[in-house]
Amino acid sequence: MDLHGDFHVYDTTMRDGAQQEGLNLSVADKLTIATLLDGLGVGYIEGGWPGANPKDTEFFRRAATELDLRHARLAAFGATRRAGVRAADDPGTAALRDSGAGTVTLVAKAHTRHVELALRTTLEENLAMVRDTVTHLREEGQQVFVDAEHFFDGYRLDRGYALEVLRTAAEAGAEVVALCDTNGGMLPPWVADTVHDVVESLGARGAGSGSGGLHVGIHAHNDTGCAVANSLAAVEAGATHVQGCINGYGERTGNADLVTVVANLELKTGRALLPDGRLREATRIAHAVAEVTNVPPASRQPYVGTSAFAHKAGLHASAIKVDPNLYQHMDPVGVGNDMRLLVSDMAGRASIELKGRELGFDLSGESRKELVGRITDRVKVLESRGYTFEAADASFELLLAEEVEGRRPSYFDVESWRVITETRAGAPVGVEALSEATVKLCAADVRYVVTGEGNGPVNALDQALRAAIGQAYPEVARFELIDYKVRILDQGHGTDAITRVLIETTDGESSWVTVGVGANVIEASWGALVDGVTFGLRRHAG
Amino acid sequence: MDLHGDFHVYDTTMRDGAQQEGLNLSVADKLTIATLLDGLGVGYIEGGWPGANPKDTEFFRRAATELDLRHARLAAFGATRRAGVRAADDPGTAALRDSGAGTVTLVAKAHTRHVELALRTTLEENLAMVRDTVTHLREEGQQVFVDAEHFFDGYRLDRGYALEVLRTAAEAGAEVVALCDTNGGMLPPWVADTVHDVVESLGARGAGSGSGGLHVGIHAHNDTGCAVANSLAAVEAGATHVQGCINGYGERTGNADLVTVVANLELKTGRALLPDGRLREATRIAHAVAEVTNVPPASRQPYVGTSAFAHKAGLHASAIKVDPNLYQHMDPVGVGNDMRLLVSDMAGRASIELKGRELGFDLSGESRKELVGRITDRVKVLESRGYTFEAADASFELLLAEEVEGRRPSYFDVESWRVITETRAGAPVGVEALSEATVKLCAADVRYVVTGEGNGPVNALDQALRAAIGQAYPEVARFELIDYKVRILDQGHGTDAITRVLIETTDGESSWVTVGVGANVIEASWGALVDGVTFGLRRHAG
Repeated sequence: MDLHGDFHVYDTTMRDGAQQEGLNLSVADKLTIATLLDGLGVGYIEGGWPGANPKDTEFFRRAATELDLRHARLAAFGATRRAGVRAADDPGTAALRDSGAGTVTLVAKAHTRHVELALRTTLEENLAMVRDTVTHLREEGQQVFVDAEHFFDGYRLDRGYALEVLRTAAEAGAEVVALCDTNGGMLPPWVADTVHDVVESLGARGAGSGSGGLHVGIHAHNDTGCAVANSLAAVEAGATHVQGCINGYGERTGNADLVTVVANLELKTGRALLPDGRLREATRIAHAVAEVTNVPPASRQPYVGTSAFAHKAGLHASAIKVDPNLYQHMDPVGVGNDMRLLVSDMAGRASIELKGRELGFDLSGESRKELVGRITDRVKVLESRGYTFEAADASFELLLAEEVEGRRPSYFDVESWRVITETRAGAPVGVEALSEATVKLCAADVRYVVTGEGNGPVNALDQALRAAIGQAYPEVARFELIDYKVRILDQGHGTDAITRVLIETTDGESSWVTVGVGANVIEASWGALVDGVTFGLRRHAG
Repeated sequence: MDLHGDFHVYDTTMRDGAQQEGLNLSVADKLTIATLLDGLGVGYIEGGWPGANPKDTEFFRRAATELDLRHARLAAFGATRRAGVRAADDPGTAALRDSGAGTVTLVAKAHTRHVELALRTTLEENLAMVRDTVTHLREEGQQVFVDAEHFFDGYRLDRGYALEVLRTAAEAGAEVVALCDTNGGMLPPWVADTVHDVVESLGARGAGSGSGGLHVGIHAHNDTGCAVANSLAAVEAGATHVQGCINGYGERTGNADLVTVVANLELKTGRALLPDGRLREATRIAHAVAEVTNVPPASRQPYVGTSAFAHKAGLHASAIKVDPNLYQHMDPVGVGNDMRLLVSDMAGRASIELKGRELGFDLSGESRKELVGRITDRVKVLESRGYTFEAADASFELLLAEEVEGRRPSYFDVESWRVITETRAGAPVGVEALSEATVKLCAADVRYVVTGEGNGPVNALDQALRAAIGQAYPEVARFELIDYKVRILDQGHGTDAITRVLIETTDGESSWVTVGVGANVIEASWGALVDGVTFGLRRHAG
């Protein structure tokens, strides 16, 4: 494994990924993400654009003392020098030189129209800008990579000039020329043909050809839904440097999802790119990065999504039991994910049994046959009334516990609850309404009457419920409601419809989802809140 | 354009797409989605599995009288007959035959291990099952397609048998053999090689080769992030039938996103697949389907995502002005999207003008330029705060009227409102809660204080509001709330998230949709209720 020689896995989450609408990273966020990326074992981490962005300048300053990277090297991103100045006199170049990063990735124009329109200089001067900036930074002791912006479009317009930009960079000492599909419009066959031609034309190295020589790289965007496939096609055609972002972050439709690209290359084509065992950290790390960026992770994300290995079992559960690999394209353990069986209205006995085992209940064998039948029937009845257990594992576990142990886990008895939502007199439409909830319940033999406030009725009920129970069970202070989803079933009946609510609760270490159903949204929410707290108390009770 | 001959665009949103975790479609939802898909111009719409699922049986029953499809044909999905019975005696086969669908898509096993483990029959009997079922349905006058499940994995394990299944289906009269990457583990080069071999081995038709002959199809899942690229690779290798789902819905990581696949094939490779102009409806239709499924659309979705053509202004703004095509891979108009697209496509000036004309407001001409600009800006601001006007024409008309006429149409002034939801003391969880709302308002110079009851807070508010106004405007007695949808925006913030409510109101003759947004569901509902009544009163006054 040579992370910095034969084949580069190059992450640009903190630079190009941060271009995503709504994604803002503080310096502290960046330091955390860099450590996570290092834990994944990538070779290079692009930290930002020092000089162009004060936050990024500070990031590199703090990284020098605060980051302790095991595998990765930090790269600073920036542009070639401006037209008409010496590289040594260009403030942008100076910021890159002084960033302390061992590697600098320079963006260069490889598209004649962009040189004319965006840089407003001549084609010759653009080549000089590439040559001078690379030469200067190399002389200052930095490793230099060049991102050839709009390369694929530029190559179509003027192949000769596009290749000339790459050749200029290579001759000046750039170790990588990364071909960027900046507008993201490419399809895999076009990428393959172009990369093949570039590798041939420049006499670039292939992987495993020893040290030295030029890497051709790929930087893909997902505008055609082909960012991953374009990256793979480039590698197949000879690229030995792949850029991408965790969770496919990026402007517009995003950059190539680096985890998906690497997992495909490792697991499907047998290349070893990350240090041994690191790919097994992928799910954990992708989710941890999502926590930092505060972008909800996509459940359908390849390899690491929470639904990526989820099966609506029913039909084939018996076959899954015999040979799970018939129903999954790989063992999810390889990326740190889990096979998950969804309990749905297709629920068959075999899948209830499997799901039970997943949750720690042994439901196999002849003696448990009647029990499993009873649970299956009950799930079917509840689902016909609007419940769903495929997304609400915690409510399903409470149901299982009730059937297996003979009574529903319960830590408090609710006497009644009430919630009031009102506007102040005279407040116009649009001014925030206020909610106040009162809950009466008994916990550990004491009766509590507690009132909570909130900006909405469910929020107020949640406050009151946890304040009341918290007096008997202090651990609920750690519980927090982190997601809330409402679905109106049976649409067409207006507000008489059945409402289903899914609530996700966390205790800071893990999270669980519960479901509530009712003729009104408040009642449905109440059911899910009670299940959420009960599940948490059961888990903490051991 | 021959939607049912040369090349098939085959949608399976309502069958395979509905396997997605958390996605549940009512029969009414399915009828709406089918109409939307027909508007997109797909050739085939797979409606479900009649016989296996009572809801799907009902869908086909109702579709026969309630659906008026212009382009698409409906396909019923089902399995080959069970082992050991005659196709004519098999209840599953009968349900397909009696569904009324002109096309039946049969799923058949093409993987020897799956035949043994999941079907628990012999390889010979599996072939007989394919042959008999296809033959029987063909004799009954139906067009038959065969989905070869687990085809690619089966082909790797036993190429001969996998091909034999296809050959058997074709010889029995199947017009399509669709190769399914059921577990989703394939990469484009493998798909290309396999499809190429199948097309050669079966002597299948290529596109444009005239009528008759066998279509080889592709059915891809996104587990390697390559569903779109795999579909394209198959077409490149000779497939002439492509399956996929709107918005890439589907089990695990989802099916191939049909819009992305079709847009790539039409715009990038020059094939004409949909009726002329239909691709320009893609963004609107993809978003409308998302409203029905209640799955929040992904902003980074290729082609139709709200961020798909969003650009960070600044750096290249002047170059963008000179030549926008330097910064986008295609003109977003081609898929009904918008380059600026902070909001929906309705926010463009031209579409505001168009929409205004539709609603009876003349917004064209130089004199109205400033007005249109103001409306456009206001829509953008409101949409950024969570409003949507695409689905809420009535709220949009009220906004237009306000801007054009100088004041918002108003028939009453609300002083305050309050709603109380409570359980009776001692009532256990699950027993219905009751709601009581009090509304204070002035209408026609009289102050009303009215209390309404309901089985939910919104129902109670609606009762109280209409009872109060009804004393001044008796026509509101005819208004009825017929649909109510809730969407939590900004998921991840628990009950603090912004809530959007869409309400449909009818006066018995027509119906209209209004939108409300707020920090809590009651407040959002109130806004939509007030708009709903106001719009109705304006219509009746006018």
